[in-house]
Amino acid sequence: MSDPYGLRRVVRPAGALPQQAEVLDPRLPPGPDELLVDVEHLNIDAASFRQLANQAGGDAARVAARVMEIVRERGKMQNPITGSGGMLIGRVAGVGPEFPGASELRRGARIATLVSLTLTPLVLDEIRAVHMRAERLDVRGRAVLFATGLWALLPDDLPLETALAVLDVCGAPAWVARLASSGQRVLVIGAGKSGSLACAQARRNGAHVTALDYRADAAAALVEAGLADASIAADATKPLDVYAATRGAFDLVVNCASVPGTEMGSILSAREGGEVLFFSMATSFTAAALGAEGVGKDVRLTIGNGYARGHARLALDLVRETPALQKMFAARVG
Amino acid sequence: MSDPYGLRRVVRPAGALPQQAEVLDPRLPPGPDELLVDVEHLNIDAASFRQLANQAGGDAARVAARVMEIVRERGKMQNPITGSGGMLIGRVAGVGPEFPGASELRRGARIATLVSLTLTPLVLDEIRAVHMRAERLDVRGRAVLFATGLWALLPDDLPLETALAVLDVCGAPAWVARLASSGQRVLVIGAGKSGSLACAQARRNGAHVTALDYRADAAAALVEAGLADASIAADATKPLDVYAATRGAFDLVVNCASVPGTEMGSILSAREGGEVLFFSMATSFTAAALGAEGVGKDVRLTIGNGYARGHARLALDLVRETPALQKMFAARVG
Repeated sequence: MSDPYGLRRVVRPAGALPQQAEVLDPRLPPGPDELLVDVEHLNIDAASFRQLANQAGGDAARVAARVMEIVRERGKMQNPITGSGGMLIGRVAGVGPEFPGASELRRGARIATLVSLTLTPLVLDEIRAVHMRAERLDVRGRAVLFATGLWALLPDDLPLETALAVLDVCGAPAWVARLASSGQRVLVIGAGKSGSLACAQARRNGAHVTALDYRADAAAALVEAGLADASIAADATKPLDVYAATRGAFDLVVNCASVPGTEMGSILSAREGGEVLFFSMATSFTAAALGAEGVGKDVRLTIGNGYARGHARLALDLVRETPALQKMFAARVG
Repeated sequence: MSDPYGLRRVVRPAGALPQQAEVLDPRLPPGPDELLVDVEHLNIDAASFRQLANQAGGDAARVAARVMEIVRERGKMQNPITGSGGMLIGRVAGVGPEFPGASELRRGARIATLVSLTLTPLVLDEIRAVHMRAERLDVRGRAVLFATGLWALLPDDLPLETALAVLDVCGAPAWVARLASSGQRVLVIGAGKSGSLACAQARRNGAHVTALDYRADAAAALVEAGLADASIAADATKPLDVYAATRGAFDLVVNCASVPGTEMGSILSAREGGEVLFFSMATSFTAAALGAEGVGKDVRLTIGNGYARGHARLALDLVRETPALQKMFAARVG
């Protein structure tokens, strides 16, 4: 019986999906449509790691103890306070014959999971080290991916840190690839990891790209690197400042900001009939929907789905073919 | 100096837009690009009215006193607890020569505002009555619309209650008109006001329409009325029930549910490469974005913008030309 969403591993509450479940059972034998992974590292979501570190008073051993406790109790690494997870890196330990892409995967291949740890059944035997700055744990354990679980082979030709950072935000360039067209004026808000990938992809699509960031040097660096055509220094949380700088002239606005309160600035930057693509996880649905209505702005507002078919390959190829991005990511994760 | 967003009326905090402001100044003389309205009724947002009624122990006089207090303090009717507003009905008292559409409006014309009370400068002289069930107040006061403020002439050929109910949700059919195409399989979740308009519009676009509601009779009634082709009785907050019923086969899913927790059911109902249009104000941005990624579903997720050019006329025309909708709305608001 096929179980693409891993429902049989939900312990409670009944009828929940794994992500919404309180407890998963990671100890069931792997099903014919599942992938078993020997886990080497856990990359903890930034919000979750900050909470764990604060609670532990910055003590790595106490962070490790708390992570062991959460995973033992829940069968997954989902921080009960923040609700968030992260991703993992490991080696293929077993491939069910009905797991999609089974033919591409051999035992021992090194992969990263692209679905959240919040829905990934996990057993931890040991935490070997906690890297506080990288928000990463070296561990020994086993995880399970369901048939719908996304994964990517880790490339040999890019540094691991770069590959992980790119995979973490690979939905953004994939959706930009679909939505940006040649000759369009595209504004990318936020010159961080996803913002720089979004700029590069929009340019590749033939758009005229403007990067906006509150750090003037970060936005300008994208222009110097040839990833954007123009830059604006403005605080995206101040809609009137943003509007004064953009004059509401953009066909497509891609919000890659990492702070709350940037919905109105994004909406006011788009032209009538334009689009806003929200990739910031700090976006408020009602602020966007009611904000656009409040100013009578006819714009299409899209929620940035972290998945799009082929997103991992598209983003890795973009970085492979763009030395400026490689340099930026190396500097950022170094 | 043009001020299409009404910035000069923001008292505090500095740099805020009227919707985000704590306090507006409704007493400034109207500017050349503003519309002055003699207010007759306030339709309070459902969440706000419920909070006011609970706080007042169900006492109409205490609701009235609290509304007077809020409007006196804030210069607008924005419930400080829920953050939400509502809309108003009144007659044109003055049209600035630079107000858009000035030529269409004469003094005394009866209009409804289509922007939220949360950004509408308002002075109340008196509350004459509080209609607890209709969540409406009869008042005497004055309001101001900015150049970007949306309004609609109230039609003579539809009952007032019907027109107001239609205008309240007119963004939904307008966006369905753009996104639904002939031959598509469209699922509408929620058989309420916006859901029934969405069904009717999707059918008009030539789609095959299925209505889903937890009340089997409400969904079936849309089929009997000729507004949908098929119906499903299911609880939209239970993703697995919804998935079992829909099998993820829909090209476009329109979420018009009025309760939280319906994101996953909507996403699982769409086919790979399909779309979900969220018109429920209870939608969580992160639940939608991370939920789709979690199940590896390549779907475009759109935030239902309450505005689209021509939305009021489109929705009123749809009701005018669809006797079944008129009957439904009359029964619902009667």
